[in-house]
Parts: sequence; structure tokens; C-alpha cells
Amino acid sequence: MYYIGIDLGGTNIAVGIVDENGTLIHKDSCPTKRERPYQDIIKDMADITLKVIGDKGIDLKDIKSIGIGSPGTPNSSEGILVYSCNLNFDNTPIRDELQKYIDLPVYLENDANCAALAESVAGAAKDVSDSITITLGTGIGGGIVINNKVYSGFNFAGSEIGHMVIVSDGVQCTCGRKGCWEAYASATAIIRQTKEAALKNPDSKINELVGGDLNKVDAKTAFDAARLGDKVGEQVVKQYIKYIAEGLSNSINAFMPAAVIIGGGVCKEGEYLLKPLREMVYSDIYCRGNVPKPEIRVAQMGNDAGIIGAAMLGK
Amino acid sequence: MYYIGIDLGGTNIAVGIVDENGTLIHKDSCPTKRERPYQDIIKDMADITLKVIGDKGIDLKDIKSIGIGSPGTPNSSEGILVYSCNLNFDNTPIRDELQKYIDLPVYLENDANCAALAESVAGAAKDVSDSITITLGTGIGGGIVINNKVYSGFNFAGSEIGHMVIVSDGVQCTCGRKGCWEAYASATAIIRQTKEAALKNPDSKINELVGGDLNKVDAKTAFDAARLGDKVGEQVVKQYIKYIAEGLSNSINAFMPAAVIIGGGVCKEGEYLLKPLREMVYSDIYCRGNVPKPEIRVAQMGNDAGIIGAAMLGK
Repeated sequence: MYYIGIDLGGTNIAVGIVDENGTLIHKDSCPTKRERPYQDIIKDMADITLKVIGDKGIDLKDIKSIGIGSPGTPNSSEGILVYSCNLNFDNTPIRDELQKYIDLPVYLENDANCAALAESVAGAAKDVSDSITITLGTGIGGGIVINNKVYSGFNFAGSEIGHMVIVSDGVQCTCGRKGCWEAYASATAIIRQTKEAALKNPDSKINELVGGDLNKVDAKTAFDAARLGDKVGEQVVKQYIKYIAEGLSNSINAFMPAAVIIGGGVCKEGEYLLKPLREMVYSDIYCRGNVPKPEIRVAQMGNDAGIIGAAMLGK
Repeated sequence: MYYIGIDLGGTNIAVGIVDENGTLIHKDSCPTKRERPYQDIIKDMADITLKVIGDKGIDLKDIKSIGIGSPGTPNSSEGILVYSCNLNFDNTPIRDELQKYIDLPVYLENDANCAALAESVAGAAKDVSDSITITLGTGIGGGIVINNKVYSGFNFAGSEIGHMVIVSDGVQCTCGRKGCWEAYASATAIIRQTKEAALKNPDSKINELVGGDLNKVDAKTAFDAARLGDKVGEQVVKQYIKYIAEGLSNSINAFMPAAVIIGGGVCKEGEYLLKPLREMVYSDIYCRGNVPKPEIRVAQMGNDAGIIGAAMLGK
């Protein structure tokens, strides 16, 4: 049997065929054009689904289900997107609308939860039944898998661990709270922290690396400066890793998953990031005596995690 | 059928018979005298168990199981207490030792998790399947129930939500971290905060209420002063409730339980505490649009929660 996974994003709709091992067989996509009525967008989802099936010569009866990962908060039992961050999809009956075109079971889940499920089924957490997947990107996406299933609470809105205050009355977060983990440990956050440090320290390597144009600072700049021995860069990186560790330790103390999976571009920093991160987390978490500690691993599923995790909702 | 619940504390061992509805039928206790060898302490647990059964004329074959709640971290599947905070019980095979005296299934769980299970089976969360129970006492105890079962992670050490940093680099916590929720929102914390405010503001009602002796400050003093219109007391209470709200919102964003149950002496403050607390939490949590919000309720099980929850481990 095969499974269809749909990654419904603010920019693109990506659709893939996934086998029962979580391997992506074939995919296609189209622009979301999110200003359109939801009926038109869901019609496109159906059209691309039928196209990818046709491309591979697979019969519809060999497809077990369609899973959809979307931003925001779904009502997964009713197949309704209750709240969507950046689509005009609030209170939208996605499942019913899609089933007008394709008569298959349709599952709906938050996209960060789908990424976590992908790591659990086929990625860095496939050997354990309980894991947390954290993606350090524009924000911090969190997904929780317990007993090999997505855990999202009574209202399907849980696992928002990026929106956990780690600095009371701290930096304003996009969610309305002040001091969220996301405001300190996302890629957006290290860019802000790098710029602030460069402004205060005009002689730092950071300024040199961007040719004096702080608009060119990205999430790598402070790491690059630190690797060149720049004290300001080292300080930014050290503090940034400490912020990651604090939210990670908080999440671990709450959930104690067998593995914590970290994704996002910053993982390319490899052991330069992971070694101090593990040291901080392992010294902080509440695992005393001989109590085993969760493993900290890098995500493996890459950009297709959303499609694969969505597909695996039906497994 | 009946269930035995044992609350193994640093001071007392309390043993009770509980029916399948979570009602405590009869109990007895003895001092732990924790400096003794574990074999002696467990012998006492067995003796009191047999005594409470005998007192009520119940036959051993009508007892389904024995559950034990203890401080620290158990290995619940092997019945071993791996780490104990304040007992000499590290790596102690409690189940095997107790079964030398009584041939019944024995379950072992952390005491805060037992309190949460008690609320779930027979208390403030009995109408929902997913709940978090927080006890604001000397520290902050956290217990998590998912699908009517205790959730404690792959190593049985989870739900330590009191040890979640809410103030990066903040006040030293007993766990080794700095800035834990427990260090800001426990009863111990409000006593410290009240004393600090009174020292800075010698004219406050707080000083008057304790006759100038700050050693007499307790977790109620700031609330009492605030109710008398004292600005310093009001400020302490306002900030304290904000700290409670921050950790509560963090926990809710992660778990999204149907109900959050709050226990501890501070709950006696009633709506004076709960009204602003609910307002802060409901404005902070990530429940957008029509997404339903968890309920915030006061614990109902009182001092016997540990016994009752331990007993219900076998249900």
C-alpha cells in the first residue's frame, strides 16, 4: 500500500506518494496562491494528488489514505482547519472538501507534528517510540511523538514548545507573549543577536564578514566569526547555544522522550553546536543517579519531512 | 476488588485501602525513620498493609494490587527506585522486597505522578482523560495523565515541570539549574519574595502582620497584606501570580491537557488567586480562533492524594 502526503504551505502545496516505510516515491507541487478561496486551493490539492498517482501508474485502490500537514491548529478528528497562521483557512472543512474529489480517508495535522512523525517513522527517531522534534527556523517548530503517534493534546493545539517563556518579561514574541524560547533560539533570534553584538562591537569579525552591511547577517555569521577566533562571535554563539539548551532541557524535563531531534539550518554547524549543547543539557536535566538520559540527535528527513510525516498519519 | 496505596514519604509511610472508584476506605501510618536499611522500611510497609486489611476484615484475595508512590525516580517496569531524593533508597528493588511478604502485583511511581492520577480517577480531573496536576508547595510537583494513565517518559523521570527555566540565569534552584519555575512560583518562593519586599519597604503591612519578625512570613502573608490594601503586598501577589501563569502557560502550550489542576495551600486564596491567573493564562496560551482552551481547576484530593493515586496504579 501507498500513502499520499500533502504539505500545505503558505507558498507551495507539495504532494508526494510515500510507501509504508516512509520512503518518498514521487512528488509534485504547485503554488498555493493563498489569497484564493479555499475551494480552489483544495481542488489543486486533489488535482496534484491524482497527477502524482497517474505519473507512477499507481491505482487509486492501492492508496490507503491522504494526510495533510498544515500550519496552524487543526481539529484532527473532524478534518477541519480551525486556525491557520498564514492561510485564509480558519474553520475550513478540508477533509470534506477534498473527499468531494477523492474518496479516501483524509487525515489532518499541524505541519511541525508531521515533521516529528516523519523523523519517528523513517528518520533520526525511528528506533524509539517517544521523541520530540524541534526545528530551529524562522520560528521554533515543535512536534511530539508518544507511542509512535503524534501527541497534540485534547484540542490538537499542543506541542507549541517554541512558545514557552524562558526569559520572563523578555523579548517580544510573535505569539504575543514576551520571552518565548522562539524569540531567543530560532534562526531569526540568532540573526538579531548577531546584529546587536556587531553594532556594539564595530571591530568584530562579524562586521568584516558582512562587509559592514548588517542586513547581510544570517544565522551562520556568528558561527563563522567564532570559528575565526572572534571573541564577539564566540560570545554570541555561546549565549545562543545556552538558549537552545534551556528550552531543550525544559522540554526534556517535561516529556523525557528517548530522543530529541533537532532540525534547521543551524544543525549544519555539527559538533561545534552539538558538543556544548549536549554538555549543557546533560548537566541541566533532571536525570539523577542511574536514570538514563535522552539522546540528542540531528534531524535526517530534510525538506520532505512535511510530506512524509503527513503521509504517515494514515499508517 | 480493592487496591492498596502506599505513600512512602521522608517522614511517614501511609498505607490505605482504596476501592475501584478511588475512595479511601481505611488508612494507617508509621514513621519512616529513613536512616534505617531499606529492608526494615519495606518490612514496615508490608506490616501496615496487612494490618489495614485485617482492620477492615478484607481477605487478601480481594486485593488486586499494591501501588507505591515515592519521591525521586522509579524504574516503574522493574519496580526499582533508581533515585530517591531524601531516602537511602537509590537502586532499591522495592517490588521484589515487598513481594517477599505479600504475593500481589506491586506498582511503583513518583509521588507527584500519583497525586495527578488521584485527581484524574476521583478528583478535579475525573471527567477528562488528559490532565496536568501541579502542586505549589515547598517545591513544584508536576504530574501528567494522558489517556487516563500516568505519563512519565521513556525513563519514568518526566513531568518535572517545576524544573523548567522561566527566568534565564535567574534564582538558584535546588535542582542545580538557575531560574526554574519552582524557584519563582512555589510556596518557598513567595515566602522569599515577601521577605525581600518587606525588607525594601519597612512601612508595608507585611512587616506589621508579622510583628516586625520576617521569620514569621509564610506563603499567606503577602495575600493577607494585599487584601488589606497594602501596595507592597499587592505587588508581591501580582508578580507571584504572573510567575505561576508563565509556567502554567508553558506547560499548557506543550501538553494542551483538557484540564490543569492546581494544588497546594495557596489555592485557599480562591478567586483572589484564580481570577487573575486564568486571565493571564488565557491571554498567553497558544489557543487561537475557535480552538478550545484547557480548564484551570483547584485540586480536590487533599492529603490522601498520594495514597489514592498509588492505589490506582493497579487499576
